[in-house]
Amino acid sequence: MTDYRKDFPLLSEIGENTVDGREWIYIDNAATSQRPQCVIDAERDFYLKHNANPLRGNYPLSVEATELYENARKGVRDFIGAKSAREIIFTRNTTESMNLVAYSYGLTNVKEGDEILVSIMEHHSNLLPWQMVARQTGAKLRFIECRPDGSLDLDQVREQITEKTKIVAITQVSNVLGRINPIKEIAAMAHEKNAIIVVDGAQSTPHMPVNVQELDADFFAFSGHKIFGPMGIGVLYGKKKLLKKMPPFLSGGEMIESVTRESAKYAELPHKFEAGTVNAAGAIALHAAIKYAQSVGFDVMQERELAVTKRAFDGLKELPHVHVLGSDRAEEHTGILTFTIDDVHPHDVSEILIADGICVRAGHHCAQPLLNYLGISSATRASFMFYNTEEEADQFVASIASIRERMGYGK
Amino acid sequence: MTDYRKDFPLLSEIGENTVDGREWIYIDNAATSQRPQCVIDAERDFYLKHNANPLRGNYPLSVEATELYENARKGVRDFIGAKSAREIIFTRNTTESMNLVAYSYGLTNVKEGDEILVSIMEHHSNLLPWQMVARQTGAKLRFIECRPDGSLDLDQVREQITEKTKIVAITQVSNVLGRINPIKEIAAMAHEKNAIIVVDGAQSTPHMPVNVQELDADFFAFSGHKIFGPMGIGVLYGKKKLLKKMPPFLSGGEMIESVTRESAKYAELPHKFEAGTVNAAGAIALHAAIKYAQSVGFDVMQERELAVTKRAFDGLKELPHVHVLGSDRAEEHTGILTFTIDDVHPHDVSEILIADGICVRAGHHCAQPLLNYLGISSATRASFMFYNTEEEADQFVASIASIRERMGYGK
Repeated sequence: MTDYRKDFPLLSEIGENTVDGREWIYIDNAATSQRPQCVIDAERDFYLKHNANPLRGNYPLSVEATELYENARKGVRDFIGAKSAREIIFTRNTTESMNLVAYSYGLTNVKEGDEILVSIMEHHSNLLPWQMVARQTGAKLRFIECRPDGSLDLDQVREQITEKTKIVAITQVSNVLGRINPIKEIAAMAHEKNAIIVVDGAQSTPHMPVNVQELDADFFAFSGHKIFGPMGIGVLYGKKKLLKKMPPFLSGGEMIESVTRESAKYAELPHKFEAGTVNAAGAIALHAAIKYAQSVGFDVMQERELAVTKRAFDGLKELPHVHVLGSDRAEEHTGILTFTIDDVHPHDVSEILIADGICVRAGHHCAQPLLNYLGISSATRASFMFYNTEEEADQFVASIASIRERMGYGK
Repeated sequence: MTDYRKDFPLLSEIGENTVDGREWIYIDNAATSQRPQCVIDAERDFYLKHNANPLRGNYPLSVEATELYENARKGVRDFIGAKSAREIIFTRNTTESMNLVAYSYGLTNVKEGDEILVSIMEHHSNLLPWQMVARQTGAKLRFIECRPDGSLDLDQVREQITEKTKIVAITQVSNVLGRINPIKEIAAMAHEKNAIIVVDGAQSTPHMPVNVQELDADFFAFSGHKIFGPMGIGVLYGKKKLLKKMPPFLSGGEMIESVTRESAKYAELPHKFEAGTVNAAGAIALHAAIKYAQSVGFDVMQERELAVTKRAFDGLKELPHVHVLGSDRAEEHTGILTFTIDDVHPHDVSEILIADGICVRAGHHCAQPLLNYLGISSATRASFMFYNTEEEADQFVASIASIRERMGYGK
């Protein structure tokens, strides 16, 4: 079996690279993934060999920087199955992508009396921008709720999407439950009522093949850093016919054709939405990350990730005081196990796990409305990637199994 | 004399690193600087040793990432003389910083009948956001013009700032003329009329010590990539009393205290303005860049840069058909020499320079209103950094001297 861990120096060069020379179990991958060497090298190589401001100069160094940057855009296009590279906009992260859609599409297409439909399980980044649009336009924000296991009642969703609905904002994979939402079906319902669908792909793109044309998503966003890429680079896909009609969001250099004192003629897509010096190094390293994911293959990644997730999940199921949120089936968790332990605060859980060398996250996971809806204020989340091992899953379960006793409760 | 070029691998490892094995003369530094090895290493080291999502986890890797990130903020605070690290917001670049101020401060503080005063020499990134604010609020955009040599008539500026003026937006150093504007004096005039001043520091921070408290700037923005840092990271400084009252710009994760279905309570400064996963690696590498600049020292950098700029300028002055925009004194160019050659299009100039292995930029330099005002549509810009050499300046002048003849004109 290929040892993919060696591709990730932080995971494999224990002692030299870790915080205090301990071998840490990193299962906070839904917060950010680790970077393979090829991604770190891609960013470095850009600065060592190709560094110039792309799109601006006509000397070879700048032309080459431009080519590498635009190739990265094509790589993203192919990765998510977009029709055209002009539909791919580089942003900082999913949050910025969502804000771009909210400011540029939302504020110009939503009016008083309209409705924006968001799911109760949205990350704040796909909720707060819509709260802003609702506040500024007088539109009403409505919520798609879920069953206790995190699944959606599609008949109910169909009823909630009406002629008043202008935007349906929903995540493809919940960052708390790990559950995959049926985007294609919901997109069809939205389109039937002439609404558009905005999809948060932050947690899906690192774990499953995505094809925005098959989903028929109008907008689709993801972050580089969650899929082995660097921080500071993200993507917004939008259908060309929508992007073309939208006003620019950020304005400044690079996104214009001509400027007078009073006005400006904006550049064609995608540059209209990429104001200022672009993060070329970041985009190029994201391209390397995508190529890395493709070289391993989602089939391989999914098989390994599921095996580890299932092992951890099966272990947790044996523990009567531990409650995993969402589905009862490991297959429906996309590597994410968010849980509570009776009488133990999630922050105590994470502290004890730290003592055992395990990195997880405790808190509201930027999804407070979902947690409130589920009747809890915080939870602990372990999130696995294909590079995690069954031994790590076992150690995680063993730590969890010991927590109540270590906190002074019975076993 | 210390050979600082060896700190910059792209400049010093000729043959291995350059596009086609040629030794290029890189004098397009106002577009983007080159990165020293220590900056490239800082970004790499973060991913190799400290990579986690900062601000989110309580395990040591994440805590350390947070500390490094917040230390970078303190480094920026000290670098530009801010009072508090909470006044330092990390953005993608100067353009985003300016848009943040325009959307968050501009749209909420400017009303119909108010005036926004911008200088004619602004980069589009400090003009288009104000055009947007004027358009959306009904305020009037007015222009501070300059003398043919690029200097401002301060008496005229004083007259232009009235009770109606709410915002004065001005660059500290023109990216076309290289001229330094008297920000401190203009800030005092603005404050006398209860206006605020928004300063574009993109071209000043790489070349001179800046102290935002001495300048009494209300907002001050700069980009990492122009001052030896990586792409994808920039800074907005704002006075705390202003930032505190401003609504968030981008919303999503990390910038909230609590969220309900309908609303959110926002986090304290500076996090209120940093939505989504931050570019920690970028901020940390920018910190390394700042430390590098400080280790060389602005006195040393300025002395070298001026020597090279003066040598090139003196050479160009000998050529009767060459006209350098702005001041007649090299001291007033901050390394920037933008020029025209009679009867030769700037793009032809840059093409011939490329044939001679010299990287410059031709075009409108994202400052079309200034170029129109000066009666030209485009120009060629050479921009020097302290790591450029007098030999490079001489080769540049020799190329320029030969251009008219190579284009078929007399000498």
